[in-house]
Amino acid sequence: MSPVKNGRVIYNEIPTGYPVPGKTLVYDESQTIDLENEPLNGGILVKVLVLSIDPYLRRKMLDPSIPSFLPAFKVGEPLENSGVATVLRSDHPNYKPGDHVLTSFRDLPFQEYLVIPNPQLRILENKENLSWSAYLGVCGMPGQTAHHAWKEYAGPKIKKGDVVFVTAASGTIVAQLAKADGLKVIASAGSDEKVDYVRSLGVDVAFNYKKVSTREVLQKEGPINFYWDNVGGESLEAALEFAAQKAVFIICGMISNYNTDEPYNVKNLQQLVWREITFNGFLVASLLPKYDDEFYATMPGRVARGEIKYKEHLVKGLENTGQALLDVLRGNNFGKSVIVVSEE
Amino acid sequence: MSPVKNGRVIYNEIPTGYPVPGKTLVYDESQTIDLENEPLNGGILVKVLVLSIDPYLRRKMLDPSIPSFLPAFKVGEPLENSGVATVLRSDHPNYKPGDHVLTSFRDLPFQEYLVIPNPQLRILENKENLSWSAYLGVCGMPGQTAHHAWKEYAGPKIKKGDVVFVTAASGTIVAQLAKADGLKVIASAGSDEKVDYVRSLGVDVAFNYKKVSTREVLQKEGPINFYWDNVGGESLEAALEFAAQKAVFIICGMISNYNTDEPYNVKNLQQLVWREITFNGFLVASLLPKYDDEFYATMPGRVARGEIKYKEHLVKGLENTGQALLDVLRGNNFGKSVIVVSEE
Repeated sequence: MSPVKNGRVIYNEIPTGYPVPGKTLVYDESQTIDLENEPLNGGILVKVLVLSIDPYLRRKMLDPSIPSFLPAFKVGEPLENSGVATVLRSDHPNYKPGDHVLTSFRDLPFQEYLVIPNPQLRILENKENLSWSAYLGVCGMPGQTAHHAWKEYAGPKIKKGDVVFVTAASGTIVAQLAKADGLKVIASAGSDEKVDYVRSLGVDVAFNYKKVSTREVLQKEGPINFYWDNVGGESLEAALEFAAQKAVFIICGMISNYNTDEPYNVKNLQQLVWREITFNGFLVASLLPKYDDEFYATMPGRVARGEIKYKEHLVKGLENTGQALLDVLRGNNFGKSVIVVSEE
Repeated sequence: MSPVKNGRVIYNEIPTGYPVPGKTLVYDESQTIDLENEPLNGGILVKVLVLSIDPYLRRKMLDPSIPSFLPAFKVGEPLENSGVATVLRSDHPNYKPGDHVLTSFRDLPFQEYLVIPNPQLRILENKENLSWSAYLGVCGMPGQTAHHAWKEYAGPKIKKGDVVFVTAASGTIVAQLAKADGLKVIASAGSDEKVDYVRSLGVDVAFNYKKVSTREVLQKEGPINFYWDNVGGESLEAALEFAAQKAVFIICGMISNYNTDEPYNVKNLQQLVWREITFNGFLVASLLPKYDDEFYATMPGRVARGEIKYKEHLVKGLENTGQALLDVLRGNNFGKSVIVVSEE
């Protein structure tokens, strides 16, 4: 069999502000691969099925000379992120053709085929017959993030009658986890469509933060005992203003700050002291060893039984990666954004 | 015996910005008290010896209609804070004349004599023969604050080789507690004199933040695993910039913000996420039940043996209260500020 096209998404230049499709990220078809004869050297040859698009990718598009916990992408190399692939050929005892493997946490390049030299990947049994994309969302990094951090930081402190405020609620399953734990859930989202969806999940209060003042909602429905922060800025400021004594803030991200040199700076951090608030900044990678086994043993079943619902935004074709990332960063997508690279 | 003068410090009006001596706080000698015949009704008559001056007093000089955890002082009434008093007459079985009592946490008015109707005060045995003012500083609220919060938030997480950065270090014993726990201690203070004192306590790095850039010191001596924040603003921003992964920030106060309507707003809160930082805002009142017994059993002895050193700034006379508070807020005092109301 002759070599086939091996399309890739190249990280072409460091963006200022929002990344520009076709400029920051460029789709490239110049490479080919011989699927039958490509040497494996103890590794596996995989065909990539789905790849995840997440806001934090923007954080890796920085000048590499700026010190950062997240290493910067290298200009000229493919973008990388979590994905699911299927094994075509294997030279490794743990993997066989037809296996489906999950590469969590940014180690799969955005290209159609590749050899993985030292595979250390989770093999997905998928007895529940979920779509592969579900393993990038509700059963992948976003699901782990919500599940692990909610267990770690809220779990031991939940009391009857507690109230949680969840931002970017259509993109996280935290609202559902909190509801299952008996809390009153206040949820914000960035469009009426998202608000309708969040409301359909059974939260107590859902609102469109672009139309309704977060301050006014929290003043009426708070004070809040827990705050799940995905956005930072003015939402965080409002949460500080209407926090209950000893409130717990789980700081998952500050997406409102990622694409601007002049982020909104919170003015009332002093409330931390007066209200005895704890901020827990975290990266889910640190929580994996503690909670992953329980997660993979329970979450696919909860999803298959419909106890935990989720939304996906599937984008077909590697060539649409740039636009998909921009949509995520601008909040234009609805549901977990996934690039469908190939059907099985 | 005829009535004697009973001088008081009246909270006269709500300040904007810094309080103004003689305007915000007014010394008043219009009242008298008959020490032999003042009715006790089951209470005790005390003579006030020493009263504490603390930055947080400014936080209680707000419009009472603004919701606040700390209830606002009432205009026209005496200022209140912790103090030590001696019992002159008692109508209560737990107290006898000559006892010394400590009123912690803002329940003693700034006046020479008063009847306390339902006394629930700690009787100071003072076997170590410390000065009474020591029970307002190193063995009082500031000491409890440092001891209790350091134990609660740093204690379980300290690892060999850890580094702590302590702000306003001449006014807290945290640097000494951290040094005793084996940490490398970086300490900032606001004058060369204070820096010399802090250095004499055996800290590893001491600097005057008004002359030397905190960022540069932390860049060279960090990254920091713990941060003791008394000031907020630019110090907090520098600490975020040079925090180690999973650093613990103990947020005790943000004195740089108390007297201004335009506080410096931290620009890099995102580091909370990338560095997995925890902020622990706290009020020491919540930690008293857990740590007070141990504190009073050990700290006076450590102080008497010279293991823990402290500095006091004694101000003689109730009439100097307004200036003493202003000095504390401007950072012009050196050592724990105490008003000496009366000698024994």
